[in-house]
Amino acid sequence: MTQLASAGGDTSADNVGTRGGDTVAPEPYHLGEAPGPLDHDQLTDLDAWWRAANYLSVGQIYLMSNPLLRTPLAAEHVKPRLLGHFGTVPGLNLVWAHANRAILARDLNAVFVAGPGHGGPGPNACGWLEGTYSELYSHIPRDVEGMREFFRQFSFPGGVPSHCAPETPGSFHEGGELGYSLLHAFGAALDNPDLTVFCVVGDGEAETGPLAGSWHANKFLNPARDGAVLPVLALNEYKIANPTLLARVPESELLSLLRGYGYDPIVVAGHDPAAVHQAMAAAVDTCLDRIADIQRSARSGADGARPFWPMIVLRTPKGWTCPPKVDGDPVEGTFRAHQVPLPGARSDAAHRAVLEQWLRSYRPEELFDENGSPLPQVLRLNPSGDRRMSANPVANGGALLRDLRLPDWRSYGVEVTDPGATKHEATRVLGGWLRDVTKANPDNFLTFAPDELASNRLQDVLEVTGRDWQAEVGEFDVGLDRRGRVIEVLSEHMCQGLLEGYLLTGRHGVFTCYEAFIHIVDAMFNQHAKWLDASAQVPWRRPVPSLNYLLSSHVWRQDHNGFTHQDPGFLDVVLNKKPSIVRVYLPPDANTLLSTYDHCLRSRHYVNVVVAGKQPQQDWLSVPEAAAHCARGAGLWEWAGHNDELGTEPDVVLACAGDVPTLETLAAAAILRERLPQLRIRVVNVVDLMRLLPSEEHPHGLPDREFDTLFTTNRPVIFAFHGYPWLIHRLTYRRTNHSGLHVRGYKENGTTTTPFDMVMLNDLDRFHLVMDVIDRVPGLQTRAAGLRQEMVDARLAARAWTREHGEDIPAVAEWTWPYSRSRS
Amino acid sequence: MTQLASAGGDTSADNVGTRGGDTVAPEPYHLGEAPGPLDHDQLTDLDAWWRAANYLSVGQIYLMSNPLLRTPLAAEHVKPRLLGHFGTVPGLNLVWAHANRAILARDLNAVFVAGPGHGGPGPNACGWLEGTYSELYSHIPRDVEGMREFFRQFSFPGGVPSHCAPETPGSFHEGGELGYSLLHAFGAALDNPDLTVFCVVGDGEAETGPLAGSWHANKFLNPARDGAVLPVLALNEYKIANPTLLARVPESELLSLLRGYGYDPIVVAGHDPAAVHQAMAAAVDTCLDRIADIQRSARSGADGARPFWPMIVLRTPKGWTCPPKVDGDPVEGTFRAHQVPLPGARSDAAHRAVLEQWLRSYRPEELFDENGSPLPQVLRLNPSGDRRMSANPVANGGALLRDLRLPDWRSYGVEVTDPGATKHEATRVLGGWLRDVTKANPDNFLTFAPDELASNRLQDVLEVTGRDWQAEVGEFDVGLDRRGRVIEVLSEHMCQGLLEGYLLTGRHGVFTCYEAFIHIVDAMFNQHAKWLDASAQVPWRRPVPSLNYLLSSHVWRQDHNGFTHQDPGFLDVVLNKKPSIVRVYLPPDANTLLSTYDHCLRSRHYVNVVVAGKQPQQDWLSVPEAAAHCARGAGLWEWAGHNDELGTEPDVVLACAGDVPTLETLAAAAILRERLPQLRIRVVNVVDLMRLLPSEEHPHGLPDREFDTLFTTNRPVIFAFHGYPWLIHRLTYRRTNHSGLHVRGYKENGTTTTPFDMVMLNDLDRFHLVMDVIDRVPGLQTRAAGLRQEMVDARLAARAWTREHGEDIPAVAEWTWPYSRSRS
Repeated sequence: MTQLASAGGDTSADNVGTRGGDTVAPEPYHLGEAPGPLDHDQLTDLDAWWRAANYLSVGQIYLMSNPLLRTPLAAEHVKPRLLGHFGTVPGLNLVWAHANRAILARDLNAVFVAGPGHGGPGPNACGWLEGTYSELYSHIPRDVEGMREFFRQFSFPGGVPSHCAPETPGSFHEGGELGYSLLHAFGAALDNPDLTVFCVVGDGEAETGPLAGSWHANKFLNPARDGAVLPVLALNEYKIANPTLLARVPESELLSLLRGYGYDPIVVAGHDPAAVHQAMAAAVDTCLDRIADIQRSARSGADGARPFWPMIVLRTPKGWTCPPKVDGDPVEGTFRAHQVPLPGARSDAAHRAVLEQWLRSYRPEELFDENGSPLPQVLRLNPSGDRRMSANPVANGGALLRDLRLPDWRSYGVEVTDPGATKHEATRVLGGWLRDVTKANPDNFLTFAPDELASNRLQDVLEVTGRDWQAEVGEFDVGLDRRGRVIEVLSEHMCQGLLEGYLLTGRHGVFTCYEAFIHIVDAMFNQHAKWLDASAQVPWRRPVPSLNYLLSSHVWRQDHNGFTHQDPGFLDVVLNKKPSIVRVYLPPDANTLLSTYDHCLRSRHYVNVVVAGKQPQQDWLSVPEAAAHCARGAGLWEWAGHNDELGTEPDVVLACAGDVPTLETLAAAAILRERLPQLRIRVVNVVDLMRLLPSEEHPHGLPDREFDTLFTTNRPVIFAFHGYPWLIHRLTYRRTNHSGLHVRGYKENGTTTTPFDMVMLNDLDRFHLVMDVIDRVPGLQTRAAGLRQEMVDARLAARAWTREHGEDIPAVAEWTWPYSRSRS
Repeated sequence: MTQLASAGGDTSADNVGTRGGDTVAPEPYHLGEAPGPLDHDQLTDLDAWWRAANYLSVGQIYLMSNPLLRTPLAAEHVKPRLLGHFGTVPGLNLVWAHANRAILARDLNAVFVAGPGHGGPGPNACGWLEGTYSELYSHIPRDVEGMREFFRQFSFPGGVPSHCAPETPGSFHEGGELGYSLLHAFGAALDNPDLTVFCVVGDGEAETGPLAGSWHANKFLNPARDGAVLPVLALNEYKIANPTLLARVPESELLSLLRGYGYDPIVVAGHDPAAVHQAMAAAVDTCLDRIADIQRSARSGADGARPFWPMIVLRTPKGWTCPPKVDGDPVEGTFRAHQVPLPGARSDAAHRAVLEQWLRSYRPEELFDENGSPLPQVLRLNPSGDRRMSANPVANGGALLRDLRLPDWRSYGVEVTDPGATKHEATRVLGGWLRDVTKANPDNFLTFAPDELASNRLQDVLEVTGRDWQAEVGEFDVGLDRRGRVIEVLSEHMCQGLLEGYLLTGRHGVFTCYEAFIHIVDAMFNQHAKWLDASAQVPWRRPVPSLNYLLSSHVWRQDHNGFTHQDPGFLDVVLNKKPSIVRVYLPPDANTLLSTYDHCLRSRHYVNVVVAGKQPQQDWLSVPEAAAHCARGAGLWEWAGHNDELGTEPDVVLACAGDVPTLETLAAAAILRERLPQLRIRVVNVVDLMRLLPSEEHPHGLPDREFDTLFTTNRPVIFAFHGYPWLIHRLTYRRTNHSGLHVRGYKENGTTTTPFDMVMLNDLDRFHLVMDVIDRVPGLQTRAAGLRQEMVDARLAARAWTREHGEDIPAVAEWTWPYSRSRS
């Protein structure tokens, strides 16, 4: 879905050779006149800035040296590998230039989102022209030497990538995987009433599902509370090798589509720069006037209907201003301009000559002085200071971050006199705290859910706010709110993308989702984790709030939804990313969930994945115990173990991670304590999965000595795990006692079940765990053969009961932990 | 993103108790008269069938016994857990009934796709009414005893899930995760000129990104070659807890959106059954007439413009015909009707009484005879035999499967005289064979790509076909074709979904994608793998063709695209699924890729993931060697090893999987052979990753003895792996020599690089592999200390070269395998 960045190896000298047919340079650039709102000076200033940006873009793609063509262009000045996509760049630069005009005229607070892939040369060039590049990277000054280094580093080993990235000044949107530009733009605009986001959407990107759905984000943008997004659909008509769908439907159909999405589109189309500048200036003015009207009206208290937000359709040629013909094939305005128009520029003298003519066609001598610095005519279009889109702190969200005001989670905890004596829905308890987090942070905390907030039992949040809704309200609709602090839309992509945009601009939030369907955003998670990783290595980037998931309706409670809803594999995806970025928590009850989430909302620059059940389940730990246990991340539950004196080794370790596995482990421990009272049993609960990793691999990893103390070096460990069992092996394969580890977890074999059926299907039930202990503790096979057979029978009886009655056998459903703390 | 199936635990007796406010049964059902195309008999027949389906749907949700209310409804007749979603069901049943009328009138060949989540009771009921259910499940006859069992099994332990699933007669679309109904429908229609697909899209589902993008699938449907999709947007206005976006925009805006997508929508709206029946019948007739016109015109040779396909917007109340009020709250027509309207039906006598009145309101005595069989008035609307949508073999695609005609891959192989003597782009070689596969199978083989066909070097396919394109054609567009056998759209979701629909209806295909971005469809892959797994356990389901991925532009060649394009983690996602379903292949060169793909296209009911590079790379194996090596899946490369005589153990095993890791391993082997000629080196290449798994876990798994023979039981194994290194540990942790295994693979730390830089960044380069050997083979640390330092220096020099020159150091770039076969 991204655009391929160049033909890679094909462009090396070996593969090019001489080609047939003409290669034609663009005509020397001539700016004509055209009617419109710009006077002559405004027009020439705008155009000079645009040409300068285009020149700097071409330079990045092709040149390693001789940046201002002070000598005739030679092969060694041209990079051996030509990368980056020119096709989309002139359009990006045009929008940036026109945004600058508007910023200057209106003192706008604006940021820029570049949706098209591998268009990095454009925003890089704009940032260099505005001086920000040199301020952030002192080895790249705004002079001829800096320009050389600026060109050289682009898509060069050790340099910057070919698309917008954390290294790009003014970008909070990565141009890697396509589809999320509008979501990031709308996420940035939420709760930013003074902000205008210029968002360029590529017509290739527009074919993706996430982008197609995200036009509807306008139904959540409140013109009184939020800023504005000005989408510019860059309709340059081509992808890598194909025309785009939206370019090949009649314009009436395209406009009907955009109006159906709730926009009021203005078309700017053309090839002649002067005419396009005039039309674009008029369109931008009209859009910004209309936005100002909408906001003024909403902010004056008028609670009018949802507005039709303005947008621009910009139809200009692919690779505009590049050579019209290469090797006999038309290039400008065709798919051949998508990537690198002159692939042979290093090895082929004809290509190289045309490249030089092309660069000179922008008339660099009118744009840069002898030192290579931009001339005053160019500089006139630069906004100053933070008004420069390349320098706006909104795009470096950590710089604007305000800590959340967090109520003390301890006062929201449930009372636990004895382990298992009471039951609570863990996520509902969390909901009480999130309600007050929402209330205490009315303008920088949002909760996102794909229509699952109440289903995941967080509905208490709705006591202090409603669901953000700007569309019509029906007679029976409940709890919709123009200023709602919960965004619910049946699209995981939208939840994720809006939250990312909100976080990357310095605010806080939670995404609650069914566990199985969070895989829908695997790829978005990957991209965000990579952004966090790479941005942590960019010195001027400040840490942003963590991305917090709350996954509920999890794999072990899919008693009705069935097999399709069973998938704990997001944890595997998450753990593939850089350990410094990712955290996975499996709190076993309500108080540990509260403690965990308090920690998550205080953290920075992580992805925190928290999995927790929503069904009533036993409370195990009191508030102080939960605090201590979560601080440790993994620890002994002395009250649950048996004969487990300090300094002696137990006969068996029962380990668990996840709420249902913890329940089954404790139930198994209770059976063992009653039936095999001499057995030395240790119960270990893991909340923070990262504790299992070696300490040299993850900052949370337990040192080997501590791991060995907890899990022993040679006793059987029966590990009941929430997810796929091999994940535990992957995390622990270097540990001393790895060969003693036997993991039970989820395997793909589901069917329609009751809750305990699910657990039995996966041999993670209490009966099976007892059998595992008997099978693995030396001596028990004989001594406890009778108990083992009882367990087999008990499982069969439990299974038969569910098949007959449609619910769990009472001995399981009503089971409680039989020991009080004082007795244990 | 799915709809929550019921409130689960909340509906159990314990949680309900008595509620406040009125609970009101629906009025006794009365079918009035309304003007329209149906005469009185047609209207009453249609309505009777619809009522019967609704009765059977309510019965499935609530009843375990007493299906025809022969005795007053008692608590024990009601299931203890009430699951499934009634809200969407009357709409589904209405569309099915009207489709039946059209099938009978026009002898249509039609199938049904139910998009809305957890609406399983509807299609189940329709299948039972049509007799198919009883034909496929003989323990569920079409009588009162069968009806009891039919009701009981729904969302009951060991029974069928709450949404459409492989168990559902006539369904080839799973109702688990939402968003893919239209894609499956269009995929089924491709190359099925006689088929009509009735596709119900829920307005909740319509909010998802994949669904929002997939309306554009009409740009790939050729009315001459393909069948038709009749989308019905079921606008019942609510999701679980919220109104839907499309229900809360003005109708003019909705219609503008749908027209913008290229449809010609007809709105059917209402609450009065007679009026809705008349409007729906007229709408269905109009749509089918229009479809017939479009097809007739296209098939008569007129190459007209892309048609506006008709569709229906069906706006009827959520939970239509259910109790209007429960516990004082309005239910019918509100979000409260989404799931189970009377949650207290088992424990609360008032709810139960209303449930009984509700069931009786359908007048079951007019629908079913004394034996519980449908009466003739109902049966009149059943099509016969395969014309029943519940029995159409298209929905059991394996039954219609025709084997592909596959040209002998051996004649497409490249000549390999000596290992490494020549280079080829592996995927380009495959493209030559795929070209002839495409040509030999002109109506049951398609290739899908997100604008990456040529980028992934499969462009030879375009020698015999074009890209399917029904939209406008621009002046400079190339290779577009109304009958193209390649579908390119910049949406991985569309590629995957269309291919799934094509495969599930018995045809064959390939999806080629950049490796990093295949994560976009992780969740779709999960759902498809679950479908394959579950359907393999349904006796009447026939195996379908495998889903074949070709992942290229892979992690090791992201020299320009950078960090965002580096992600080999799809393999981890795939290997979480049932081993009987998934296969992963990493062919190291062109001939092994050909052999692998030939195998994949012959296979059934798998997901085959093949990762292969597109850049020029050394050929290692001749055609016969490739055939033998791929048949083994993992094996010794004797020509590459050294002093590795049978019966003796080598000093070290160099193992590799993936093309770049194989190259680096061989380069390391060459250094070791030259510099440490006494060292006994074994080189093992793994093509079929499943060979590493224990034989009891995967049908391809190597028996332990064979694994030990290959990898030894105690010698160091340096394993160079394409993906994340821990995947190899996960696959092998039970093997004898696991502790001897040292894996090098990809870790998240990328930046902008040259190809060899990427490899060096991950310590998977030849120099590092040599160091690994020196560090791990006893005695070498001292003996080869000088060589080790040379390797360190060589790496530094290579890195410095790339930073200076922007391309790989010639010693690496131009390296070739130094031994001829005869010498080795």
